[in-house]
Amino acid sequence: MIRPDKTICAPATATGGAIAVLRISGNDSFGICEKIFFPADKSIILSEQKGYTVIFGEIRSKEILVDEVLLTVFRSPHSYTGENSCEISCHASTYIVRKILELLISSGAVAAKPGEFTQRAFFNGKMDLSQAEAVADVIASKTSASHSIAINQMKGGFSSEIRKLRQELLNFASLIELELDFGEEDVEFADRTKLREIIFGVKELADRLAGSFSTGNALKNGIPVAIIGKPNSGKSTLLNSLLMEERAIVSDIPGTTRDSIEDAIVIAGTEFRFIDTAGLRETEDVIETMGIKKTHEKIELSSVVLLVDEITDQADEINLRLEYIRKMIIGSEKRLMLLINKSDMCTDNTKTDLQHKIMLSGKETLMFISAKEKTGLEELRSELGRIALSGRIRADEIIITNARHYEALLHVSESLDRVILGLDQQIPEDLIAIDIRQAIHYLGEITGEITSDEVLGNIFKNFCIGK
Amino acid sequence: MIRPDKTICAPATATGGAIAVLRISGNDSFGICEKIFFPADKSIILSEQKGYTVIFGEIRSKEILVDEVLLTVFRSPHSYTGENSCEISCHASTYIVRKILELLISSGAVAAKPGEFTQRAFFNGKMDLSQAEAVADVIASKTSASHSIAINQMKGGFSSEIRKLRQELLNFASLIELELDFGEEDVEFADRTKLREIIFGVKELADRLAGSFSTGNALKNGIPVAIIGKPNSGKSTLLNSLLMEERAIVSDIPGTTRDSIEDAIVIAGTEFRFIDTAGLRETEDVIETMGIKKTHEKIELSSVVLLVDEITDQADEINLRLEYIRKMIIGSEKRLMLLINKSDMCTDNTKTDLQHKIMLSGKETLMFISAKEKTGLEELRSELGRIALSGRIRADEIIITNARHYEALLHVSESLDRVILGLDQQIPEDLIAIDIRQAIHYLGEITGEITSDEVLGNIFKNFCIGK
Repeated sequence: MIRPDKTICAPATATGGAIAVLRISGNDSFGICEKIFFPADKSIILSEQKGYTVIFGEIRSKEILVDEVLLTVFRSPHSYTGENSCEISCHASTYIVRKILELLISSGAVAAKPGEFTQRAFFNGKMDLSQAEAVADVIASKTSASHSIAINQMKGGFSSEIRKLRQELLNFASLIELELDFGEEDVEFADRTKLREIIFGVKELADRLAGSFSTGNALKNGIPVAIIGKPNSGKSTLLNSLLMEERAIVSDIPGTTRDSIEDAIVIAGTEFRFIDTAGLRETEDVIETMGIKKTHEKIELSSVVLLVDEITDQADEINLRLEYIRKMIIGSEKRLMLLINKSDMCTDNTKTDLQHKIMLSGKETLMFISAKEKTGLEELRSELGRIALSGRIRADEIIITNARHYEALLHVSESLDRVILGLDQQIPEDLIAIDIRQAIHYLGEITGEITSDEVLGNIFKNFCIGK
Repeated sequence: MIRPDKTICAPATATGGAIAVLRISGNDSFGICEKIFFPADKSIILSEQKGYTVIFGEIRSKEILVDEVLLTVFRSPHSYTGENSCEISCHASTYIVRKILELLISSGAVAAKPGEFTQRAFFNGKMDLSQAEAVADVIASKTSASHSIAINQMKGGFSSEIRKLRQELLNFASLIELELDFGEEDVEFADRTKLREIIFGVKELADRLAGSFSTGNALKNGIPVAIIGKPNSGKSTLLNSLLMEERAIVSDIPGTTRDSIEDAIVIAGTEFRFIDTAGLRETEDVIETMGIKKTHEKIELSSVVLLVDEITDQADEINLRLEYIRKMIIGSEKRLMLLINKSDMCTDNTKTDLQHKIMLSGKETLMFISAKEKTGLEELRSELGRIALSGRIRADEIIITNARHYEALLHVSESLDRVILGLDQQIPEDLIAIDIRQAIHYLGEITGEITSDEVLGNIFKNFCIGK
């Protein structure tokens, strides 16, 4: 897939909108653009322009005007890819974008593959692999939490930590290997106490990072919420009320739409995704027939369970249902919230009475709401917000969201376990060195110091074209 | 709607893609951007940069990094709107775009209304009204024909013609009004023969332009095609074969999609839209029940009628059907093409025989095809291409596509008819002057020299946000 001799081009913006941007990168960028782009100021020679300069002019195809555009010049190494690059900003007509791409290709460029610009940035040392991966996460980020993790990773916070650890291990590995060279002489260049300290330090960090994966994943992909309860308790009304409120919040800023966010609400910068709401949107009777198995599955997939019940004087029934769900989630981190719906239909006394009779345990919460009258929803949002924030770490703390990194860190930890065991059991240096080298290898995989075509292929194929 | 004291902002690209561009325009553009944008090179002061310069830096919200972006500076009057402007190119995350918009708005900008950037360009004399309208047409253009008309109009070819005519009329109106000032003295400053010449010249051009509207409209909006014929003649197979061929053509260039083009094919740069294909996609039996009325309606809406018939030795039947359709389209410009389908099932002799027995008249065409085997489709495309090209005018010829211009031109023509009649009947100068003024008024409406808030509101409300 690496073809640095080619100059690549692609649209970098989505179809639609007012303007479109096309990207060109590679050795021949300026030469190719000069064949189709004619500056309005005829004295301007594109290839002689400084980097970070914009030129106004016309794209022409055999003397026929295709569009008036702005062309930005980037000179190697000061560009996204590190190569000579141009960006053409044109009118966002599907015809014009197609035509300019055709012209670029017929002038010598090739169509870029998904992620090829970022892959070039990686190969040219503009970023390491985990930073390159973060670029895709930044683009995909929809909430402040997912954005914050992705942008920190893109800026290299995570990589520099990993590189530091790797360097320390490398130093020790060299010392140990030096000892091996001296063979029988029984010298110790590597201070064993210091080595042990460092190995523990690295392992602790690797474990902490691997441990942050589930939180990171929730922040990146949203917290799954199950809405369950008996028929007619008002589950679908609750869902609709929450989503309608969300739409009102999101549409505050003109020109932005909710588009991809479906059946999800954002609280404290974190997305809460409602699981399998298709059923809820049908009649409640259908839910009833879905039965226990479906409920089990939903709870299994969720991190937060909203049990919706109606106001009643039969607290015993509610306690039974609570106990039933509680058994399902025991031993997990799942949070259970009991929502007593239709609470606008009763007196405060009834509520107080019910509150006394319902047995909550641990981190369970009870709330009185009216999904129809939209009362109590603010409290529900606050409570979900507390859950979001409790999973949050310090702003500068590094957490991981990438399954590839998670796996590599588990391997690092395993290798270091063997090193520690080896030190304890006074195993020969050469065997210890192998395990240290293994840990170094896996750390290098994260940042891309160690890599393979297959790994790279898997990473960049998920990028969009033009990035 | 005019609010030049405000600095406006909006996303200029569609949701999705790799990068997004936000536009800011107005007096405070630089001041607002300086509050949220921090150049990587700390020595750079945004507001002191030359126009057409790109700055790399960070957008921050209370010290938190929102994104690394490129910011382009445009200085008045050398910008799209004529005002100080900035364009921010960021990662195309919905969160980031929203966040930057929020930051711009909380720093003093207001959210732009649809078309507000172009409206400012109009008010600041960067373009006239017909050029501003063409901007929307350029963005919407999907074919080379619609693109070519729109881009010529945007470049001002049409306007300069209109302005020239208007100026000539203005000169004469002034002379005639001068005569009126002299009242009883019976002087003639305006040469009547010259005036008559000019009036005829202007009227001829107005009529020609108005006459180009139907062609222009076909090129802009596509040529409507009706596929009709008896049940089971293979209409839906034909449609599918044509559309599949089209998809293969369009998907040649990676990164581009057919998206908005549905049930249409592009030949010789012109779109052919198939009318009411919903019926064709259902079973043929349904078509049968739709009956004659539906066929009538489809033919009424079309410019090209494809009558699909099966290969048969009953030429009489086909002649009857031809005659039937012919009566419906008589007196119109509609083109009728008879397609004999399933022609792979018969010998050349049968075809020759049928060809002799079928009575074609005028511009009707007969073609043997097999929709299923995809034979004869190339010839069909060629024939449609000829239709597209026959409606085409010289590259530099000006044609109109805008209903507002069409109406104004009709008014111009009517006013000039009255002027000519007045000159013939030696009607008093003051009455003639009124009609000339009227023609001048309508010409001015096209270019926007005469305008009203209502007209402007109607024009710009159809623009997208960010343009």
